[in-house]
Amino acid sequence: MNVHDLALHTDKYQINMMYAHWFHGTENNRAVFEAFFRKRPFKNGFAVFAGLQRIVDYLSSLRFSEETLAYLAEQEENYDPKFLDALREFRFTGDLYCVKEGTIVFPNEPLIRVEARIFEAQLIETAVLNFMNYQTLIATKAARIKQVAPDDILLEFGTRRAQEADAAVWGARSAYIAGFHATSNVRAGMLFDIPAKGTHAHSWVQDHDSELESFERFAEALPNTVTLLVDTYDTLKSGVPNAIKVAKHMESQGKRMGGIRLDSGDLAYLSKQARQMLDEAGLPYVKIVASNDLDEHTILHLKSEGARIDTWGVGTQLITASDQPSLGGVYKLVAREQGGAYIPTIKISGNPEKITTPGFKTVYRIINRATGKAEADYIALTTETDVRNGDRIKLFDPVHTYIHKFVTDYEAQDLLQPIFVNGELLYELPTLGQIRDYHEEQKQLFWPEYLRLLNPELYPVDLSQEVWDMKMRLIHEHHQATDDKN
Amino acid sequence: MNVHDLALHTDKYQINMMYAHWFHGTENNRAVFEAFFRKRPFKNGFAVFAGLQRIVDYLSSLRFSEETLAYLAEQEENYDPKFLDALREFRFTGDLYCVKEGTIVFPNEPLIRVEARIFEAQLIETAVLNFMNYQTLIATKAARIKQVAPDDILLEFGTRRAQEADAAVWGARSAYIAGFHATSNVRAGMLFDIPAKGTHAHSWVQDHDSELESFERFAEALPNTVTLLVDTYDTLKSGVPNAIKVAKHMESQGKRMGGIRLDSGDLAYLSKQARQMLDEAGLPYVKIVASNDLDEHTILHLKSEGARIDTWGVGTQLITASDQPSLGGVYKLVAREQGGAYIPTIKISGNPEKITTPGFKTVYRIINRATGKAEADYIALTTETDVRNGDRIKLFDPVHTYIHKFVTDYEAQDLLQPIFVNGELLYELPTLGQIRDYHEEQKQLFWPEYLRLLNPELYPVDLSQEVWDMKMRLIHEHHQATDDKN
Repeated sequence: MNVHDLALHTDKYQINMMYAHWFHGTENNRAVFEAFFRKRPFKNGFAVFAGLQRIVDYLSSLRFSEETLAYLAEQEENYDPKFLDALREFRFTGDLYCVKEGTIVFPNEPLIRVEARIFEAQLIETAVLNFMNYQTLIATKAARIKQVAPDDILLEFGTRRAQEADAAVWGARSAYIAGFHATSNVRAGMLFDIPAKGTHAHSWVQDHDSELESFERFAEALPNTVTLLVDTYDTLKSGVPNAIKVAKHMESQGKRMGGIRLDSGDLAYLSKQARQMLDEAGLPYVKIVASNDLDEHTILHLKSEGARIDTWGVGTQLITASDQPSLGGVYKLVAREQGGAYIPTIKISGNPEKITTPGFKTVYRIINRATGKAEADYIALTTETDVRNGDRIKLFDPVHTYIHKFVTDYEAQDLLQPIFVNGELLYELPTLGQIRDYHEEQKQLFWPEYLRLLNPELYPVDLSQEVWDMKMRLIHEHHQATDDKN
Repeated sequence: MNVHDLALHTDKYQINMMYAHWFHGTENNRAVFEAFFRKRPFKNGFAVFAGLQRIVDYLSSLRFSEETLAYLAEQEENYDPKFLDALREFRFTGDLYCVKEGTIVFPNEPLIRVEARIFEAQLIETAVLNFMNYQTLIATKAARIKQVAPDDILLEFGTRRAQEADAAVWGARSAYIAGFHATSNVRAGMLFDIPAKGTHAHSWVQDHDSELESFERFAEALPNTVTLLVDTYDTLKSGVPNAIKVAKHMESQGKRMGGIRLDSGDLAYLSKQARQMLDEAGLPYVKIVASNDLDEHTILHLKSEGARIDTWGVGTQLITASDQPSLGGVYKLVAREQGGAYIPTIKISGNPEKITTPGFKTVYRIINRATGKAEADYIALTTETDVRNGDRIKLFDPVHTYIHKFVTDYEAQDLLQPIFVNGELLYELPTLGQIRDYHEEQKQLFWPEYLRLLNPELYPVDLSQEVWDMKMRLIHEHHQATDDKN
């Protein structure tokens, strides 16, 4: 098997359900699914959507090879050989609407909507969630780190601790979207045109007779990018003085050292001391880079202690989103075809938050024209016209429904963009730089209270009256049906 | 670029160091690196080593394509074109020794030892750590879950929450090594010959006019594997009664339902009620499968409450190792070539745990012949013969050195196996089934106190007197050198 064939990057139950539909001749019935997450990651006020490019690549090339078909035939005696013929013909022929990468998004709003034959919509669930969940998670974590160091240089350094190779590159890309400046991962650099940066390791120093010799040799080989790691033996007694010697020697040759890197010890104290030593040596231009298990909390505290750090290398905590390593996005059926029309569907749960919101919907960002700021996101059926026409609409809390207001002078941005329509890719993927710029612009759209790191105000995500009424009707119908049986 | 080319799956600083060595003509100097981790993951007593097959695949195919060379040339003006010629010729020609997958391992002992040209040893660090760190982490997490349900069926269900696609398949493989029975990921099933299992989703039920109809149709299509998800509307009032109807109908056709699956609500209560309903209906053979954010803690508690669950579907918490999503393994230079011989190297740190242990070493598992149980792991230089000859050796704590004992009647197993020697693959990779069996045997080698889930006894990992003396000598030499400068 070509190990990179992603047709089987799915759960077995999807293929079982495809088979059962095919068996009963219902595989061409159309269905509508929405992907969304319920819980704010890291208790952040928002998430940064990412994963669309990966989803586009996946859907564009999705085919069952003969090898995968042979595997399925051999594994599952239940499967009729004609089912495998249906898989052989498989192409994604449906519609996929999605928010743009870099968009600031919130819980319980559709980020992806798939309308397709149930046969197709079911297969792709697992991969779509896998890509969206991880990349959105890392972009969000990176956005938190960016918030505490908005004017500093941020480097993604996590590959050795990433959860395998794909996470390293897609995580690096997600961090770049949220405002990081470079990655250590060279493959991510090449795949996505992200600047790839690096200094040297302790092993470089250990592999020489002295630290000074190792610094001199490194600077000689790579004069245009040299940043020296100063903590192999003793940062202030050995590393920084040796780096200063090399920087002064470089000056005598008309060159300038880029920086020094601190990778252990008390980064607040060491950076202040090192800054002073560098400045006293007439080297104010030599930057200080810090690494060592950093995240938004450690960076915030270091800055509040007056640490003199210009560049932050962030590894493990970012690339694994270690305080919450999964987003928990789900993909739920919201409408199904019956007699040529869509009827809404619901999933009931003892846990009210887990009851799904039915119907063929989209989500609008309501921008107040007077302030230019976003007021709320507003989920409505695609058939509702008032919000598209700019009519007066009522925004109300979907749980505490008495909390409400009316808005009139607004612009409604439909967040779900057509990506695939009838299986055809309509969307022109932006460059990564454009996505990064778009994310930066997105931040201007929100009052800072919604974006702050700790205890943010919760941005409203509201349902239209029509959606809310439909949800209540379906809940009551299901309760009625269950009550009647007992 | 072929996105699956892993030559650039490395940190930029590795390539910078390779360049600096090449620039100074030291790229053929040989060096010895060891990979190990310092901290017990999840405060578990041990870890389960995994990642070797991936490392073998990577090293066997490691080449720089013309496309990657063109990228490097374009990105880094520092690089001399002749350096790219050296990369073009790159092959792994070194030695790699490694513990076998499935081995129970401990902090601060070498799990991988690389002896190679510094040019090669440096490049591979990032990928080797990335593979070892993630796969060992997940095998260890899976071993913890296996400990609380040793006689139950364990299913890996995490793909949608995995940190991208590679994590899903290599994580599924790691879980299988540690005793899981199947995965939901079909690609992992095909790549590694792991049983792939699945039931159906809520969407299957929602996509029918009634739950009963959906169950009947699923059972009709897949009679040999049917497990029905019973919580879409109401588990005890609707799901279980409907599943019982279908099971009785299957019986009338001479077929047997596999099971029902609970995916929400109070799993202890629901499983006991469902078990009773199934038994009363004469269906004792219908198994109960549970899923919903399970880990070793929830499973332990559910079992202590008397939950009647036969099969556990474990997703997010396992595939991301959510309570500690990185292992933190490192790769440190322990010896370097000087004048045709190896001299030991050390990295000093203000944090005593971070001081490396120098020298060209291996690690022996000391098995007491009388009990058949492991007494300690013993790290010695490869040149030391006493342990290999079975002579009396002294085991002492490397921190509290007065704690010691002598052992005589022992078998010493060298844990580091030759995998590549002079770049040639000598090791015959076992099948996954063999690795899984070997891991099961490994558990018999240890007293249960070392393996228990909570507050395990710490298994001794000791240094030989010669290694300990060498480490102390190098520490003192470095302190002396720093003191002399000040």
